[in-house]
Amino acid sequence: MKVVVTGGGTSAPIDDVRVITNVSTGRTAAAITECCLERGAEVWHIHTPSAQLPFLRSAGFNLDAADPRREHERLDRLQVKWRSVGDRLHLRPLEVGTVAEYADALRIVLTTQDVDLAFLPMAVSDYEPEPHEGKISSKRDELSIPCKRTPKVIRAVRDWSPTVYLVGFKLQSNVDRDELIRQAHDACLINRADLTVANDLTDVKAGRHTLYLVRPGRPTALLEPGADLTDRLVEHVWEWAKK
Amino acid sequence: MKVVVTGGGTSAPIDDVRVITNVSTGRTAAAITECCLERGAEVWHIHTPSAQLPFLRSAGFNLDAADPRREHERLDRLQVKWRSVGDRLHLRPLEVGTVAEYADALRIVLTTQDVDLAFLPMAVSDYEPEPHEGKISSKRDELSIPCKRTPKVIRAVRDWSPTVYLVGFKLQSNVDRDELIRQAHDACLINRADLTVANDLTDVKAGRHTLYLVRPGRPTALLEPGADLTDRLVEHVWEWAKK
Repeated sequence: MKVVVTGGGTSAPIDDVRVITNVSTGRTAAAITECCLERGAEVWHIHTPSAQLPFLRSAGFNLDAADPRREHERLDRLQVKWRSVGDRLHLRPLEVGTVAEYADALRIVLTTQDVDLAFLPMAVSDYEPEPHEGKISSKRDELSIPCKRTPKVIRAVRDWSPTVYLVGFKLQSNVDRDELIRQAHDACLINRADLTVANDLTDVKAGRHTLYLVRPGRPTALLEPGADLTDRLVEHVWEWAKK
Repeated sequence: MKVVVTGGGTSAPIDDVRVITNVSTGRTAAAITECCLERGAEVWHIHTPSAQLPFLRSAGFNLDAADPRREHERLDRLQVKWRSVGDRLHLRPLEVGTVAEYADALRIVLTTQDVDLAFLPMAVSDYEPEPHEGKISSKRDELSIPCKRTPKVIRAVRDWSPTVYLVGFKLQSNVDRDELIRQAHDACLINRADLTVANDLTDVKAGRHTLYLVRPGRPTALLEPGADLTDRLVEHVWEWAKK
């Protein structure tokens, strides 16, 4: 199975020192890639500069560890795992993390590799300002930042790869469940996606992260909160993508 | 010597998923804190959520290391160092990283501790939008983000601590050297700072990071690029602050 995964939040520069970013740690994408690698897949992992990365995100030595030997052993096991998957993981970092860089990176992977499955949890900017060269002076009392809508990268995926099993993600904030599912359903149609994974920030912040797996013409699957949430997501998608 | 150091770039939320941030890794602040700790100081390190942290920033195990034993030894030495400074380092994380949180954290340290020296390299937002509850819809073709100027936190420092040796930082982009020094001089007066460290992004990006140490009524010191740039900065400041 060849898989592409995208993670982190894109950045839209306002000037040389200020950016508008979509908040996203890249944790979900990193976890998805780890699951896919453990299932034997080859993975292209496209990520923004500050996104958490598969396996590397666990490579920090806990300096406060009471028993450092355990930390050393944990890191040795991690390195064994890392070496065993290393040749199947292709990290594709974006330099700044703009939407344009993201579109390029995704297009290149999808048009040069025979990708079976695409997970796109990257939080992509909907709007971008026209970047100002240098640094905007801070003398004025008010500043208005005019932004234009960015092209929706996910809508082009089906053109780049007619056969890929496409998984989009829809994050909302404080929307009721039926409305969230309706929006995810619409997203499937407009993005020509096989599946849209819908979730709500309010649940995430409250520590009860729930996923709604929405497919056109199929019943919605609900994944309850839990530490193995990403494993369960990948398990479902694996079955559906094989058909 | 009691020292406060601030690092990272502040965030100004636009809505529940988008923020305007000032780009800053927090690397300079982390290096300054390490130098101060090694000189025996007690340090309050105020930082944004994603900023690099003193010593912790070096705690990543290199999974690609050909000789893992060396990595283990390096981490053991780092842990020894960490334990030797641990009780003199007070990390003060900001929850979101807003300017208001930053002002609160700095005020509390400066008004409750008898701080001798303050380094403020944190990249602080000059403008903030009025945060929108929920997530702004992305249906419109254009979006204008109205922002207001934030209060200048550094200007209040002298009120919170009349005697602290105050070091401000001025980052410009593509400004000529005389203009950069003039702006840093003005910043010293308006911020009631003892020293303003001026630098230009163009130098940083070109790999020739140069610092201009600007003090009112004193000659400007120029610190040439080099791996020990932060050590040399702290060395100068240490001498000046003791007087």
